[in-house]
Amino acid sequence: MNAAEVLALCKARGVTVAAAESCTGGLIAKLITDVPGASAVFLGGVVSYTNGVKANVLGVPQSLLDAYGAVSEPVARAMAEGVRCITGAQVGLSVTGVAGPDKDDRDNPVGTVYIGLAAEHGTGVLALHLDGDRAAIRAAASQRALALLGEYLNKEE
Amino acid sequence: MNAAEVLALCKARGVTVAAAESCTGGLIAKLITDVPGASAVFLGGVVSYTNGVKANVLGVPQSLLDAYGAVSEPVARAMAEGVRCITGAQVGLSVTGVAGPDKDDRDNPVGTVYIGLAAEHGTGVLALHLDGDRAAIRAAASQRALALLGEYLNKEE
Repeated sequence: MNAAEVLALCKARGVTVAAAESCTGGLIAKLITDVPGASAVFLGGVVSYTNGVKANVLGVPQSLLDAYGAVSEPVARAMAEGVRCITGAQVGLSVTGVAGPDKDDRDNPVGTVYIGLAAEHGTGVLALHLDGDRAAIRAAASQRALALLGEYLNKEE
Repeated sequence: MNAAEVLALCKARGVTVAAAESCTGGLIAKLITDVPGASAVFLGGVVSYTNGVKANVLGVPQSLLDAYGAVSEPVARAMAEGVRCITGAQVGLSVTGVAGPDKDDRDNPVGTVYIGLAAEHGTGVLALHLDGDRAAIRAAASQRALALLGEYLNKEE
């Protein structure tokens, strides 16, 4: 599902969305805002490329960052919930992972990606291992995040 | 100046950067984080695609949004200062404008773009009128923002 299709589904369902991006670094927001009229449902987001921004802007507890590292299921969960909270969006989407070329400081291999989706009734996290180089991993992670949002919206019907 | 060149200059000067993006919608962050190792100097940013995110996340005063509209010199200034403040970056870069296809609600024509740069000694704003379609305006605004950052870094030497 591409960004235009997901946005059309958001509009049809009356659902607003925000994104918290680490390894995708703004790519999801870019793909969504490529589509004219995106502002009707996409409120915005945070590119939390460093732990300081995850903690201070998104409100990810420092204890989670210390205990699990930035590339982890608990941090993906807290990022999605944090961006939902600070923007007031109905759905918060998050991505944290290792796009490479190097492993992260916790020895997570390149391609490790967690995608979170926070909504009124709870938060889910998808753990993935993606193949390819930095550009391919960032593109695939963004597509999988949009697909997860699309699946959520289809289930909400 | 492309993103890799600007990042190399940031590293050479020991300057950290954050971005607050409205009409570019994450494209600047995406271009910067395309470059491996960007996290050494790029702390992250905010895609403030709606006025609520400008006010509640970036701290843009609602009075400025009401008086001048989102696409204005005062709001570009407040966005750059806001993202610098919330991320702790040494330089805050901002872009607000009308990428089209339609004018904004204040009758600013498509292609009206303000680029702000906030640093320790003050904030400057560049007002532009860019030509082209939505994709061209977003790309040109991002390039001009990176060029403004590059010029600032070269002056700092």
